[in-house]
Amino acid sequence: MSADQTASPRTSTASDDGAAISPANRNVFQPHGYPEKQVDLGEIRMNYAEAGSPDKPALLLIPGQTESWWGYEQAMRLLEADFHVFAVDLRGQGRSTWTPARYTFDNFGNDVVRFLAMVVKRPVIVAGNSSGGVLSAWLSAYAMPGQIRAALLEDPPLFACERTPAHGHSILQAGGPIFKMFNDYLGDQWRVGDWRGFTEALVRFAPAIAATRSPLTRPEPPLNIQEYDPEWGRAFFQGTVSQSSPHDKLLAQVKTPILLTQHMRAIDPVTGNLIGAVSDFQVEQVKRLVEGAGVRFDCVRLPDAMHQMHIADPARYVKVLTDWAKTLA
Amino acid sequence: MSADQTASPRTSTASDDGAAISPANRNVFQPHGYPEKQVDLGEIRMNYAEAGSPDKPALLLIPGQTESWWGYEQAMRLLEADFHVFAVDLRGQGRSTWTPARYTFDNFGNDVVRFLAMVVKRPVIVAGNSSGGVLSAWLSAYAMPGQIRAALLEDPPLFACERTPAHGHSILQAGGPIFKMFNDYLGDQWRVGDWRGFTEALVRFAPAIAATRSPLTRPEPPLNIQEYDPEWGRAFFQGTVSQSSPHDKLLAQVKTPILLTQHMRAIDPVTGNLIGAVSDFQVEQVKRLVEGAGVRFDCVRLPDAMHQMHIADPARYVKVLTDWAKTLA
Repeated sequence: MSADQTASPRTSTASDDGAAISPANRNVFQPHGYPEKQVDLGEIRMNYAEAGSPDKPALLLIPGQTESWWGYEQAMRLLEADFHVFAVDLRGQGRSTWTPARYTFDNFGNDVVRFLAMVVKRPVIVAGNSSGGVLSAWLSAYAMPGQIRAALLEDPPLFACERTPAHGHSILQAGGPIFKMFNDYLGDQWRVGDWRGFTEALVRFAPAIAATRSPLTRPEPPLNIQEYDPEWGRAFFQGTVSQSSPHDKLLAQVKTPILLTQHMRAIDPVTGNLIGAVSDFQVEQVKRLVEGAGVRFDCVRLPDAMHQMHIADPARYVKVLTDWAKTLA
Repeated sequence: MSADQTASPRTSTASDDGAAISPANRNVFQPHGYPEKQVDLGEIRMNYAEAGSPDKPALLLIPGQTESWWGYEQAMRLLEADFHVFAVDLRGQGRSTWTPARYTFDNFGNDVVRFLAMVVKRPVIVAGNSSGGVLSAWLSAYAMPGQIRAALLEDPPLFACERTPAHGHSILQAGGPIFKMFNDYLGDQWRVGDWRGFTEALVRFAPAIAATRSPLTRPEPPLNIQEYDPEWGRAFFQGTVSQSSPHDKLLAQVKTPILLTQHMRAIDPVTGNLIGAVSDFQVEQVKRLVEGAGVRFDCVRLPDAMHQMHIADPARYVKVLTDWAKTLA
């Protein structure tokens, strides 16, 4: 949510019939630093960008909720000498297809599985931020054999974005209220579209978030928010996004080395709620489960880093990623 | 549920840790008329059999709930001269991997997508019975481009196996109670295993079903039931299996010709419940949605046919399938 770009508010409305809503129907396109491409995966058209050379190791970048591939643009500039980089928009993000009623980690993950099979066609290091970090763990566990070499989880809300997690804070005790606000005021597929109501609610009910996420208090929604289907927020708040992929089960089945970076976090002294993506206790549970699966687990604690470090401090993000990648077989 | 074969009851117990339970841990193997093969799809190992020659059109057969691939054995004998036939066990069926907490149409479907990409590698006609018929519609809508030529839905409980369907009877007003019984008395991963309790409940609460499904009243569970993870029953009864793939949405996105066969059905005069897989009203809704998607819809009503016609009358099943296949481009 640190996008600097803003654009006119939506002028087209999503169709009401539940069929796939194509990016072509959404008036949000702006050019970015790398050309965008699209691939038909069967159900969705996935939007992505590519940088670097095919003779370098393949790297797949996955943004978090409310973000788009182009949040990685600065990081890609620093990565493209060493990697063949792909950055994707998941369904409901960026300019990929919106799929009402179908936002689950299993569907996000199988879209990426298809993308890897049809476009990348060789083993990748996958690096995702926030929910994209959870998805990176999903891919390590459940992708097709040989697709994933290793997975970097950038401040992933493991357990903490589930409604009924096996361990620690639930989404209702963490980031849930902000996602509920997105959905309440903007609506599934932007049907409500009350941006002013959203910003007022944010200032009133989440002053700390409002203070640190200034683009969200602007009079016009930033481009990444315009590109976001707020039904994602409902799927997380109501818990359906993880219902068929409980995090304890997927962590017990990871098959590749894992690097988890944990960024700024605190416990609210009044409510006990988690301020941040994942608690120390939850990171310990991740470590226990991943090591129990017999794979290498590394953890870097960066308590001064922003949640979206790849946007806020791309050089630091790239150094963490690159140093770790050198240690992989 | 018309299997003639019975076998000793389970002697191994499923592990309790939620990790994938491999068929190797289940003491249920019996040889069948075609050799079984397994393929590692990433999360699961899929069990399947193959018949016929690669120079014939490819045909994929998908059994319904409580069935295994070998229910198609007699049909395969009749099909193998004209088709290259693959018959699969889905996760939680037959000898494929059991995946606690992860039984959804999206996961069933993406397993088949991977199977087609890794094993079959060319466009198929897909033909599924019951929930396998619903899955055939899912594949027509959501598989990777070019994987599916056409889909035969053999007596599919479209809408009628959803908890909150868009149209007509819900699973609670149709087949739900029998699936709840499987789950109550046998338990997720057969943890309860009270076969006697199940048969007594069946006779008491579902005398009509008990009368027509005699293998279910035997003192030992038939092999197909031993091979079945009763958590499937819970996923259907509780509605989680279809939660992220509502049937109206998937039918609105089918992309290939569809043949639906509707078998014996009646409306209970006292409760109004559906006795059978899909009501006349629901078939009309399927027709409306499929034709609205711009694809060809054929329907064959066989009110005297058993739900699992491919087992009860393989010659009739094969004739319907083969006659229709000849009309496809």
